[in-house]
Amino acid sequence: MRKTDDVANATAAARSLDEPAYRAAVLDLLGLLANGELASFERLADDAAHAPDISGRLMLSRMAAGELSHIDVLAQHVDRLGGELEAEMLSYADVLGDFDARTVPRDWWERLMKTYVGYGLVLDFQRELGGRLDPETRALVADVLADNGYADYVVSVLAPVLAAEPQLGSRLALWGRRVVGEALGIAQNALVKHPSLGGLLSGGPDDAVEATKVLNRLAGGHARRMDRLGLTA
Amino acid sequence: MRKTDDVANATAAARSLDEPAYRAAVLDLLGLLANGELASFERLADDAAHAPDISGRLMLSRMAAGELSHIDVLAQHVDRLGGELEAEMLSYADVLGDFDARTVPRDWWERLMKTYVGYGLVLDFQRELGGRLDPETRALVADVLADNGYADYVVSVLAPVLAAEPQLGSRLALWGRRVVGEALGIAQNALVKHPSLGGLLSGGPDDAVEATKVLNRLAGGHARRMDRLGLTA
Repeated sequence: MRKTDDVANATAAARSLDEPAYRAAVLDLLGLLANGELASFERLADDAAHAPDISGRLMLSRMAAGELSHIDVLAQHVDRLGGELEAEMLSYADVLGDFDARTVPRDWWERLMKTYVGYGLVLDFQRELGGRLDPETRALVADVLADNGYADYVVSVLAPVLAAEPQLGSRLALWGRRVVGEALGIAQNALVKHPSLGGLLSGGPDDAVEATKVLNRLAGGHARRMDRLGLTA
Repeated sequence: MRKTDDVANATAAARSLDEPAYRAAVLDLLGLLANGELASFERLADDAAHAPDISGRLMLSRMAAGELSHIDVLAQHVDRLGGELEAEMLSYADVLGDFDARTVPRDWWERLMKTYVGYGLVLDFQRELGGRLDPETRALVADVLADNGYADYVVSVLAPVLAAEPQLGSRLALWGRRVVGEALGIAQNALVKHPSLGGLLSGGPDDAVEATKVLNRLAGGHARRMDRLGLTA
């Protein structure tokens, strides 16, 4: 447990959805989560359509639909807080920027790796933002961000292939670095453009310091994911 | 009501899932339906990712997820009949052929029109096959093929635009003809490659005649869809 957690948890306990600034920050966060779910849906559905066999197409399609089901939960919560989901989502409309244009996969393996790296980092980022909330919102966020088994699926598919083909491993390690660089840029950008999210991170005025720590932890999560594939981040 | 319906219904009444040939035909049909649902999921999800606003992205994504939820129902039924869904789906793996490669939309309107035309025809085709089944299978098929509101959505979006831009109307009418030509080819191909489906159509030996009638009715359905947009098929 990090040293700052006690302070942060004490702050979180005092946070109430009746407090306007906190409420606005939560709405901002829910908008980010809804965008994340929609983007994950689209990415997994697109991967599904490119999967090499029926079994993979079905599995990835089902994961995609699972992501989408969370959006209704988020919409209800936004509604209870007096917001409107689409309006909250709109403020993140450009947050992905040209990520997809800059990371066009050349084959199925690069596609799998891109989603594994990007999706994993986006989940970690959202969890960072969801750790110091009021209990009600925290429970909702944990539910929305629950592991859907995607990472395990990728590891089970990719790890044996990589073990047999070191050259593919080198290529995908490089590719993973490129993807994570772009993804970290998106996370950083989101924090800069949405200062209220930074407030959720630290609960204090030193957002920049806390933001840097978050980005470091995200890089650590990426290294662990690469390690699961036997690759160096 | 068509003259042949009395005969066909009488035949359907006699059909039992205990009869091996009929059972095999039903499994074949369920495999086709599952492919249809998966293809619809992928198409709607892809359209969602290209929709010009958040509202459209959400609506189309939800429709896509709705299609996918039917696959579990189909899988259960296949299982009850002693089959295996993925195996049944495999026999249709190439049925769409190069449909997508031959009908690449140039903009959002062509994309909407392609799904409207292709999806409508695929639904009509599947309904043709589902009309003369045993009551249990028929109920299941009707449920899976229930209207999801997609056609109404397209008409509500496209009709006002077309009314204001006759040139776009001419272009989309031509485009619709190209898409439906390719889609009819797919339906015809499915009937040729899966003779058991033809058996579901007619219940008799004159499959070729019945198949022609089916294709004519599909063309009629297409004409009605174009008419809803104020376009000539």
